[in-house]
Amino acid sequence: MNSESLKNKILENIEPLSRKYLHEVLASLIEIPTVSAWGGVDIVRGANLVASLLKELGFNVEVKSEGGYPAVLAEMGEGSKSVLIYNHYDVQPPDPLELWDSDPFKLRVEGGKVYGRGVADNKGNIAARLAALEALSPYIEDLDIKVKVVVEGEEEIGSPTLERIVAGNLEWFRADGGIWETAYVRRDGRLSISLGFKGMVYVELTLRGASRDVHSGYSPIVPNPAWRMARMLTIIKDESGRVLVPGFYNDIDEEFLKIGESLLELVDVEDLEALKEELGLKSFVGDLKGHEALKALHLNPSINISGLYSGYTGKGSKTIVPSTASAKLDIRLVPGQDPNKILEKLLEHLKTCGFKDVEVHIESMYRAGYTKSDAEIVKASVEAAKEAYNIEPQLLPMAAGSGPIYIFTNMAKTPMTGAGVGYYASKVHAPNENIRIEDFHKGVKHVALTLVNFTLTRPTR
Amino acid sequence: MNSESLKNKILENIEPLSRKYLHEVLASLIEIPTVSAWGGVDIVRGANLVASLLKELGFNVEVKSEGGYPAVLAEMGEGSKSVLIYNHYDVQPPDPLELWDSDPFKLRVEGGKVYGRGVADNKGNIAARLAALEALSPYIEDLDIKVKVVVEGEEEIGSPTLERIVAGNLEWFRADGGIWETAYVRRDGRLSISLGFKGMVYVELTLRGASRDVHSGYSPIVPNPAWRMARMLTIIKDESGRVLVPGFYNDIDEEFLKIGESLLELVDVEDLEALKEELGLKSFVGDLKGHEALKALHLNPSINISGLYSGYTGKGSKTIVPSTASAKLDIRLVPGQDPNKILEKLLEHLKTCGFKDVEVHIESMYRAGYTKSDAEIVKASVEAAKEAYNIEPQLLPMAAGSGPIYIFTNMAKTPMTGAGVGYYASKVHAPNENIRIEDFHKGVKHVALTLVNFTLTRPTR
Repeated sequence: MNSESLKNKILENIEPLSRKYLHEVLASLIEIPTVSAWGGVDIVRGANLVASLLKELGFNVEVKSEGGYPAVLAEMGEGSKSVLIYNHYDVQPPDPLELWDSDPFKLRVEGGKVYGRGVADNKGNIAARLAALEALSPYIEDLDIKVKVVVEGEEEIGSPTLERIVAGNLEWFRADGGIWETAYVRRDGRLSISLGFKGMVYVELTLRGASRDVHSGYSPIVPNPAWRMARMLTIIKDESGRVLVPGFYNDIDEEFLKIGESLLELVDVEDLEALKEELGLKSFVGDLKGHEALKALHLNPSINISGLYSGYTGKGSKTIVPSTASAKLDIRLVPGQDPNKILEKLLEHLKTCGFKDVEVHIESMYRAGYTKSDAEIVKASVEAAKEAYNIEPQLLPMAAGSGPIYIFTNMAKTPMTGAGVGYYASKVHAPNENIRIEDFHKGVKHVALTLVNFTLTRPTR
Repeated sequence: MNSESLKNKILENIEPLSRKYLHEVLASLIEIPTVSAWGGVDIVRGANLVASLLKELGFNVEVKSEGGYPAVLAEMGEGSKSVLIYNHYDVQPPDPLELWDSDPFKLRVEGGKVYGRGVADNKGNIAARLAALEALSPYIEDLDIKVKVVVEGEEEIGSPTLERIVAGNLEWFRADGGIWETAYVRRDGRLSISLGFKGMVYVELTLRGASRDVHSGYSPIVPNPAWRMARMLTIIKDESGRVLVPGFYNDIDEEFLKIGESLLELVDVEDLEALKEELGLKSFVGDLKGHEALKALHLNPSINISGLYSGYTGKGSKTIVPSTASAKLDIRLVPGQDPNKILEKLLEHLKTCGFKDVEVHIESMYRAGYTKSDAEIVKASVEAAKEAYNIEPQLLPMAAGSGPIYIFTNMAKTPMTGAGVGYYASKVHAPNENIRIEDFHKGVKHVALTLVNFTLTRPTR
């Protein structure tokens, strides 16, 4: 069978498969509330479902926990070219629940879209890849490919265990090319593929006052950590968005910035303007516009307050001097920045400014990673996208978001491209997360074609 | 019957009555979660229980709602001297629930103490006064007294309706003397009676960013209201505790300050030092010590953060740019300060400093009020305290806390003293709220004796 007829064979059956995976498999994935921030038995149920779906396709499946939530590792084919597919079955918490129009853990189909926690991030992508793999599976020998799939359950809490699993199985994770967990469709219909992901330092900082909450009649004399927290936050970042921690910007990789800037020159800024409008914003931080905003988004490290709380946060009024005040900070890193050093610099800065008593709880820490646009797997996915979406995809040097891609790109030395079924308004991490049904079907085709295209060139190792 | 034998008659039967009211009546009051911040049917159940207890004692009872939660008004006796007793049946929310050692809504008796939400503030005082009134009731004509009782259900949310009820029934609320809802026992065993209470402006301030929470990958460009909230809070109060709102201290009543300072000179500061130790504090706000701390506590207005929240405040991590940030501020006022003017000055200050978009939700607003120490009812309660507690009580010109006493002292022109069953470690508004059983029995005696002493002097009107 020649390459072209092989490709046609694979595509022949892909549409009914795609529908099955959307309405049956994705629905069953969504039903399990695999919120990694909550933990619990649903995490295990989620991992088991993924494992059994892979087994049904003929994969050899192994589940590794290594003290964390289970990661599903699966392998099929003995071909000379290897590809690694990465996803995660865990999701963000559904809060605030009251803003959902339907149960976040029940797939809702309406108006050409499907809704549910995880339909975009990342269960929709799992389902799409499984659909593509089912279409490919009869031809795995013809393709001369070896497919490896890893689906972890800790991505939304910073993948604390994945690094250990990869470090202990470096050969298994080394592949000629890999497909990262995501990519999304822009307003103009182009698939946006991020070739890198930022690193992350997620910490909860806590200040304490009295040993217990006190009636706020005592506020003239009892120190309130909420006031100190406010003061502490103001010394971390200025109003223009610039981080005030000394040395924060020191170690950024210059080569990455150069590559990044030139790739971003090719990116239009319409999506950003549309986002501004959709979010009801008059201006972005520091009044950034156009490509300057784009560069800030994709090339700058940042510090954000994801959560802030002290005292009574319920309905109505309660009068207390709270005993604690806490802030959840997510710090996003770019290539060159070392998470340990960055955290050290932050704490040193707080100490210098009078907050040496701040308590630090680390939720996650990992560095950034990226792949250059001339990698074979990237080229294969660009060609596949042209065919699946009928328009040239857009390559970003680095996503705005974080993900432990360095584990693959830096540790396992596997170049990574992207694929995904979400779109610009998927409301990832927010209420009413959704995808368009049409994007799901295109996404299935894109994954199948990426793998077919990748095998049309011969192995490099 | 002469005064002395009347007094003995009344005291004869008081101990078994006191026990009945502690173990039966207080238990039944605690069981109803009358949290005014929550509202609901339990508020009505609480009011009904209070009304029926008063009816059993022979009071004529009327329940007035005036669009708010019901207030119970009751009257007994036709004597020439009138006394007004004020309490509230509502309580603060029990949060944080996990820090309670037992169900906050079930009276627990252990080690000479009783525990439960409201045992000190204010259901224990309701029970103690009812016990005293049951002891007095057979002699109501001999005492030539008219007793009026008002028990409202909105004190913990700022008594928004009580003012209207009093304004519409000024004659009913005018009395020769009154007993305010509370007083407490100090470490040295002396009853501390506050002759005034601060006013209150309780507001929730909200800043908004994007129209919805956004994945925090966008934090380099999407404005985060949590950073702005931090900045806004720092311009409200400085580190020494001084309020930075221009004109905040302008209108304070000079006569009150003079009276207050001279009364505070008589107060020892041991309790403050003990409090500092109990709360694990190295120092008070602004390093205040001794009588300076005492004056700050009782004579200064203040602004406090009772609650602060933005974004994800749950377990673990979630990465978002929050769309809102809110702070619950309680502003305590002293005599002379007008709540409306103070709020206006605060908002003007915020506007001037770049926060003209701040949203304001008012929870409560009322002014301070106080009674001078030479009022007849105060003298009667001081004499009663000497006998009930075997030691001279302590008079404070103004409590650290707030309460709508101005409704009685300023509007109805009724001079008010205090009585109560709590003690210095009652953990009012906090988990494990408790009172000592012995204090309850002394408190019952104190109320009975205050009323008896008050009738021994002839009416002034």
